[in-house]
Amino acid sequence: MDNFKFHAYTEMLFGKGQISNLPEVLKRHGKNVLLAYGGGSIKKNGIYDNIQELLKDFNIVELSGIEPNPRIETVRRGVELCKEHNVDVILAVGGGSTIDCAKVVGAAYYYDGDAWDIVANPAKIDKVLPIVTILTLAATGSEMNKNAVISKMDTNEKLGTASWNMIPQTSILDPEYLYTLPAIQTAAGCADIMSHIIENYFKKTTDAFVQDKFAEGLLQACIKYCPIALKDPKNYEARANMMWASSMALNGLTGSGKAGAWTCHPIEHELSAYYDITHGVGLAILTPRWMRYILSDATIDKFVDYAINVWDLEPKGDKFALANEAIDATEDFFKACGIPMTLSELGIDKTNFEAMAKSAVEHGALAYAYVALNEEDVYKILEMCL
Amino acid sequence: MDNFKFHAYTEMLFGKGQISNLPEVLKRHGKNVLLAYGGGSIKKNGIYDNIQELLKDFNIVELSGIEPNPRIETVRRGVELCKEHNVDVILAVGGGSTIDCAKVVGAAYYYDGDAWDIVANPAKIDKVLPIVTILTLAATGSEMNKNAVISKMDTNEKLGTASWNMIPQTSILDPEYLYTLPAIQTAAGCADIMSHIIENYFKKTTDAFVQDKFAEGLLQACIKYCPIALKDPKNYEARANMMWASSMALNGLTGSGKAGAWTCHPIEHELSAYYDITHGVGLAILTPRWMRYILSDATIDKFVDYAINVWDLEPKGDKFALANEAIDATEDFFKACGIPMTLSELGIDKTNFEAMAKSAVEHGALAYAYVALNEEDVYKILEMCL
Repeated sequence: MDNFKFHAYTEMLFGKGQISNLPEVLKRHGKNVLLAYGGGSIKKNGIYDNIQELLKDFNIVELSGIEPNPRIETVRRGVELCKEHNVDVILAVGGGSTIDCAKVVGAAYYYDGDAWDIVANPAKIDKVLPIVTILTLAATGSEMNKNAVISKMDTNEKLGTASWNMIPQTSILDPEYLYTLPAIQTAAGCADIMSHIIENYFKKTTDAFVQDKFAEGLLQACIKYCPIALKDPKNYEARANMMWASSMALNGLTGSGKAGAWTCHPIEHELSAYYDITHGVGLAILTPRWMRYILSDATIDKFVDYAINVWDLEPKGDKFALANEAIDATEDFFKACGIPMTLSELGIDKTNFEAMAKSAVEHGALAYAYVALNEEDVYKILEMCL
Repeated sequence: MDNFKFHAYTEMLFGKGQISNLPEVLKRHGKNVLLAYGGGSIKKNGIYDNIQELLKDFNIVELSGIEPNPRIETVRRGVELCKEHNVDVILAVGGGSTIDCAKVVGAAYYYDGDAWDIVANPAKIDKVLPIVTILTLAATGSEMNKNAVISKMDTNEKLGTASWNMIPQTSILDPEYLYTLPAIQTAAGCADIMSHIIENYFKKTTDAFVQDKFAEGLLQACIKYCPIALKDPKNYEARANMMWASSMALNGLTGSGKAGAWTCHPIEHELSAYYDITHGVGLAILTPRWMRYILSDATIDKFVDYAINVWDLEPKGDKFALANEAIDATEDFFKACGIPMTLSELGIDKTNFEAMAKSAVEHGALAYAYVALNEEDVYKILEMCL
């Protein structure tokens, strides 16, 4: 096990009606609140009104219209609002995009320069305005971690940044908020959660048993509960386990002590940067193809673990047959969840594959991934996704 | 899943040589340090000298001789030292006993009255001096949670107290510090970890799938690595996984969202309060007997999960046979780890069973346990342990 620092310090308030704690939580930080949210679904499902009612005694300024792949222009707009209104705390209500945007707004507020600098260079992040979140989508884990991903569409860049100071102070997770999600968002969110776990599971470090057991358990939760949530959107047990799994998948529990870079995420970031597709959909398409591409004598034993401990497949003599069964199961699972499983279905062709492969290798440090990939490898994986 | 708050905010610095961060960590809180430790093993294994060397620029006052079941008199002594020397931060170096003692010293420092009050009534705990720990035993999980257990030998009381403010700010976990542990401490520590997980696993709440998968994975880690650590004390992989499992077992991951009281812990607290035995040994003796006592049609399905997912036993038609196989495996495992598995071996007879049963039911709220127990039940379980 590699040395690591684990510091998932977010106060997680989980369950029905936890929003009632919002005034007490915000009061710790101040009276002036930046309310950050996305396209307005929180106005339809009543959360927006509930917040307004609860925060009568606070001064609220709104940053709305945060994009599914949040853009640097929106971050800059948020920073201006914070400065203009002396904001004390940012309340992000939404999924990972909204929370990621809020984090970088909070960091850029204290940065003397353009906000894109701290995306391109996380080391420039120092102090951050306190972030409080109300989660409305189980997916990115941003509600309990230090990561944020921001897009710059004019240069086709989508980059991840991170800081221990960007971790939300408090996150409110009410599984009932997931009841009204469109099915594709439930499915894409599940794919995102599973990808986080899989990226951490397939690493060169082989002795992090505890982390791997957490990973297997969380994957089993996704496999068990996503189909239930899709069939029965108001199933509390399914929503609660998916929501908790999203936070646990990427708060350090599955990745701490395991070195190396991720693979599918940096490649997917290229897809989103060029085509603005849903992150989880891109990951679902890439993951099984990447698995097939890297399956070899060197990786087979990990795939056998994955087959037996995650997909509950029967051990058999032919390890490769078993591994392929597990990869098929992965692909079939995403398909059954209703995710379009080819890039062609999304209208994406080879046009930008070369540039995307180059950028993914560079930004994703794919030379240090579980199986090192060069541009040609990434190109081939993208071709397999067509 | 029940509503819950999860807040495991300790900064965990895990791995070889992490102690080098100690000056930077302590400096955040101040210059005046109460160094709390137990019987002096840290002087033998070099940690004490290392600390002195690292903290040349700090003012250190020592609280030594903290007992394996830490006593209220020692807490009071610590509070006096803190007041006398204007202590800014408590550095607890040891296992759960030392850390528990440090927590209550830190809380009692700000309490206007006798320290026992805040043990008997956790609601009286408010502010707490910052606690930093260096863990030298994988067992109680105290390094990452809000709990502390303190004994008052004159009245045969051993009570747990808790406060969100008692959670350590930083814990340093170097698996190499476990290399020199006596075998019985490794084994008893493992029994303690497993008991924490088992107490949380066997609860009335049945829909906390994620938590239960974490529990199963952590139990598997204990079962895999404790025998390795006993055979090969300097096996880093085994020590690292055990050490990380100890923190994960009782930081909220396995218990959040699952209601109800624990069982074996309150009964064991009586054994320790009357006979000052090693906590983990008492738990190892009690756990399989308690399991046999509560096995019934109402609990059988959980035992089947336990048999298959934890002990990797083959499913079979006769559920009770399978459950008993798992309970046998539990008992045999502790025995194989070298733990004395009867109270008689510890020189304990029935003399105090009646008083202990009465007190366990009362202090442990055993009416709200997984299977409600009354005094007669506890008496019978204790008898099974003879």
